[in-house]
Amino acid sequence: MHDHLRAEAEALDGKDELAAKREEFVLDETVYLDGNSLGALPANVPGRLAEVMTHEWGELRIRSWGESGWWTAPERIGDRIAPLVGAAPGQIVVGDSTSVNVFKALVAAVRIARDPGNPSEGRDEIVVDATTFPTDGYIAESAARLTGCRLIPAAPGDVPGVLGDRTAAVLLNHADYRTGRLHDLPGLTAAVHAAGAPVVWDLCHTAGALPVGLDEHGVDLAVGCTYKYLNGGPGSPAYLYVREALQPRFDSPLPGWNSHAEPFGMRAEFEAADGALRGRVGTPDILSMLALEASLDVWDGVSIDAVRAKSLALTDFFLRCVGAYVPTGRVESLTPAAHAERGSQVALRCEGAGDVMKRLIEQGVVGDFRAPDVLRFGFTPLYVSFGDAERAARVLARTLA
Amino acid sequence: MHDHLRAEAEALDGKDELAAKREEFVLDETVYLDGNSLGALPANVPGRLAEVMTHEWGELRIRSWGESGWWTAPERIGDRIAPLVGAAPGQIVVGDSTSVNVFKALVAAVRIARDPGNPSEGRDEIVVDATTFPTDGYIAESAARLTGCRLIPAAPGDVPGVLGDRTAAVLLNHADYRTGRLHDLPGLTAAVHAAGAPVVWDLCHTAGALPVGLDEHGVDLAVGCTYKYLNGGPGSPAYLYVREALQPRFDSPLPGWNSHAEPFGMRAEFEAADGALRGRVGTPDILSMLALEASLDVWDGVSIDAVRAKSLALTDFFLRCVGAYVPTGRVESLTPAAHAERGSQVALRCEGAGDVMKRLIEQGVVGDFRAPDVLRFGFTPLYVSFGDAERAARVLARTLA
Repeated sequence: MHDHLRAEAEALDGKDELAAKREEFVLDETVYLDGNSLGALPANVPGRLAEVMTHEWGELRIRSWGESGWWTAPERIGDRIAPLVGAAPGQIVVGDSTSVNVFKALVAAVRIARDPGNPSEGRDEIVVDATTFPTDGYIAESAARLTGCRLIPAAPGDVPGVLGDRTAAVLLNHADYRTGRLHDLPGLTAAVHAAGAPVVWDLCHTAGALPVGLDEHGVDLAVGCTYKYLNGGPGSPAYLYVREALQPRFDSPLPGWNSHAEPFGMRAEFEAADGALRGRVGTPDILSMLALEASLDVWDGVSIDAVRAKSLALTDFFLRCVGAYVPTGRVESLTPAAHAERGSQVALRCEGAGDVMKRLIEQGVVGDFRAPDVLRFGFTPLYVSFGDAERAARVLARTLA
Repeated sequence: MHDHLRAEAEALDGKDELAAKREEFVLDETVYLDGNSLGALPANVPGRLAEVMTHEWGELRIRSWGESGWWTAPERIGDRIAPLVGAAPGQIVVGDSTSVNVFKALVAAVRIARDPGNPSEGRDEIVVDATTFPTDGYIAESAARLTGCRLIPAAPGDVPGVLGDRTAAVLLNHADYRTGRLHDLPGLTAAVHAAGAPVVWDLCHTAGALPVGLDEHGVDLAVGCTYKYLNGGPGSPAYLYVREALQPRFDSPLPGWNSHAEPFGMRAEFEAADGALRGRVGTPDILSMLALEASLDVWDGVSIDAVRAKSLALTDFFLRCVGAYVPTGRVESLTPAAHAERGSQVALRCEGAGDVMKRLIEQGVVGDFRAPDVLRFGFTPLYVSFGDAERAARVLARTLA
């Protein structure tokens, strides 16, 4: 059935300038559309990590903190991620989980908003995306409780309406983890700034999938994970971006010895390091961190604009195939049709979605299920082909038939 | 010179019941006395991690969260550490850095102290070991600031004198990172309890080197790293112990989706999980965590009492060799002679210690230097021999001659 879509997929793959990138990953016959949850394994990672274990840890041992560059890994790897999210060097450090970085960023944002130099000192509201991935909301609630703020949940579109001179900080997601909707980062950032508050963006579902433009849009603080479109490995360390101009005022609620101006001075008094280093806390998790560093090699020579173009082409094509193959009324796309509002995943509402996803996985099409009724399909442009998109839609149609 | 000490070392090694354990580590001719900073590589770790990367991540990908047991790793590995620190199962979770765990434990301790059920609600002082590893002090200061407490630094011996009905929490180190002095965990815990407050112990320098007895001594909360005597690898995840009876009142300042009662329910309201899981936060760092899990295999069949006995014998013997070989007055031991006050390291004050340590390392004796004038030698009973101790003292004497 529908041979023309198969032929079209073949043609699109034939002229895909990113097609060769797939060879840099460990993949099999599976159609892997869950890279928005856990990116596939870049082929160079096991070899690199074997060297870290046997040579750097096994032979050099403690000397590797200096000689193998372990100590400076958080900022070095941050600078590798920087161009992917539109940041100049010196503004990103890698380490800890996304949740912990949300906490650092949000408490620091409140402190910046309350800076005596700021026009309003009575800021006591933290605005948080009401549709956020839950952990951001839990952490925002904790940050509010510890800083004496009230939490104001608002859907991203409603955020401008709740901002004011009581706004201490705003936490937003660049893309909705459930629907794949892309939010208006430039516009919302400007709105928060107009209210005199700093904004924290969570980039988990966009970094590595589309241009973010942190510097260009004047974002204050941002966090993100590295195990989705950045392919850093299961639970690989997250990152924290602090705009250069704000770094002198970044007052971390987690000041560890790694963010001290003189970490080996072992001084009782805390004195914050300069720059992005202020976002560090304790001893960095070297094995996971160096796996992430190796995984970033797949970005060599890749333009994030090309990634975005392919991502949109893939999700467009997948939606067309779903429209053509799946019986009418069985699924409904939650993902906006407008490119400007679409991330790199397609979310389909579907009756019995949990069971449907199980059957898709059994047939070699791996997406994921989000309660109560959502099928999520993530499109990672570095390794997903148009042929994959067509096959996924075909298997979905067969499953629902 | 002093052939009898060499002969004695040989005899002691000959009857060492832990001697065979050395074969389970990757070691060379180096005398490695820096296991109190970074434990040596257990030989099984690279093979296990290769399997995690190529099979679990590379082939099963997202399915490994369930099928390979990734999701439950923090509590499963916590239960592996538990017997080493005298804890029954279900009280330890692994994850995050020591600094982040100190923060969780200390804020939670203050909240427990202020519980309406507690006789005094006006508790507003956090007592912290004034000789602590700096990061604990920085985090304690942050916890105090965020909970409206005053920080009271006190040397461990002076702690009982500063406790009272304003004490909200106490943070102590089981062993001093600099001098190797072991503090009186049972006595200080009882003193803090008598003041009606909870105590947090930092076990970084004792777990895996000597019996801790968390349950036996009624410790409330404890944290520790896993990369020293536990050999988990550079920056491997830390752990958090929450006494079972306190778990229902453990109110984390870092409530992430991993500590939710229903993590995949994606619910906007936070509802804490039961038990030690409350100490989890974000997605666990799987590569580092499973390296740690594999590294714990070296503890199979090892009695922590045997480890303690060998540790004391090693440090005794090293101090005797130093006394016999090193010219009088060139070094002074900061480590207590009394066994009850000694951890598993020897700290020697020495003029020009930084340069002396460099020269020792060049000669294959690896300890470390702590500013301004301390040579630290850590004795890991699982892989350090009496021959190593004798050779280290001999090379030190030659270096100082």
